[in-house]
Amino acid sequence: MSEEGFRPGEIAVALPEKFDAGIYFIGRIRTPWTKRDECPKNARGSDAVCTIELDARYAPALEGVAACSHLVILYFMDRARRDLVVQAPRHHSEPCGTFSVRSPVRPNPIAMSVVKLMRVEGTTLSVIGLDCLDGTPLIDIKPYFASVDSVPDAVVGRSKGGTD
Amino acid sequence: MSEEGFRPGEIAVALPEKFDAGIYFIGRIRTPWTKRDECPKNARGSDAVCTIELDARYAPALEGVAACSHLVILYFMDRARRDLVVQAPRHHSEPCGTFSVRSPVRPNPIAMSVVKLMRVEGTTLSVIGLDCLDGTPLIDIKPYFASVDSVPDAVVGRSKGGTD
Repeated sequence: MSEEGFRPGEIAVALPEKFDAGIYFIGRIRTPWTKRDECPKNARGSDAVCTIELDARYAPALEGVAACSHLVILYFMDRARRDLVVQAPRHHSEPCGTFSVRSPVRPNPIAMSVVKLMRVEGTTLSVIGLDCLDGTPLIDIKPYFASVDSVPDAVVGRSKGGTD
Repeated sequence: MSEEGFRPGEIAVALPEKFDAGIYFIGRIRTPWTKRDECPKNARGSDAVCTIELDARYAPALEGVAACSHLVILYFMDRARRDLVVQAPRHHSEPCGTFSVRSPVRPNPIAMSVVKLMRVEGTTLSVIGLDCLDGTPLIDIKPYFASVDSVPDAVVGRSKGGTD
């Protein structure tokens, strides 16, 4: 890390002066991890059951969700910087373009995880497959459709199927 | 549609008074579809090659992206209402909880599509697998990792593998 907070090879850009749209935090994600270095390296790195606590306001929107075996969860990585276009994640050997990695550091720090739904009780969902810090803001819940979302033979050349 | 713009069975809620975070539009998506009823019903509904035009500011962030066979694209459905927790999409027989469908109508109208990457030229990506209106704002590009993102046997009980 340099004095400016950069690792070697990292490139920052000036972000636009203002935001183009706003988002609501619609709930919170509860996980066993309270520090960044405790989090699993990726969403298959732990079988821990985490909970998604949806705000009561949106409760009727869960109708039908229990019929899904898997969900797509979007959440906001609110502690990540947003200005790096090239970054050097700890476990990569060289700097990477931001859009080639799943790091939380990106212009819009919205993470996407596919989770296995275990249980819905009121506005609390128990799931397996999250890797984020406890208290992370929730922004969306979607049904996972294998027909459009599953591509078993997809490849990422750089890491030959590894994940970040 | 009622005078208030509701279909039978739909439920709206009062949204929070202010947003919790902001997002940047980082580019635009170009598709053949300029009206909502021209759009494919879902992302496998067309083999059209669409283009993603990333703002020049973020060009270095594409380093490494060309090595991905598939990408996760997040985009903002900026014409959708955000207050419906139960909605009646045209092709569903009865009203659905918002989080059980992939409709653009949701508190945070962020869509997620898995696309096949055909070509990267400068800051333009040619992809197959989008279903949105021409000019839709782009908010993120991520590598698709089969190891965490692909669940071929996922099921959605309600529609037995159909997609919305």
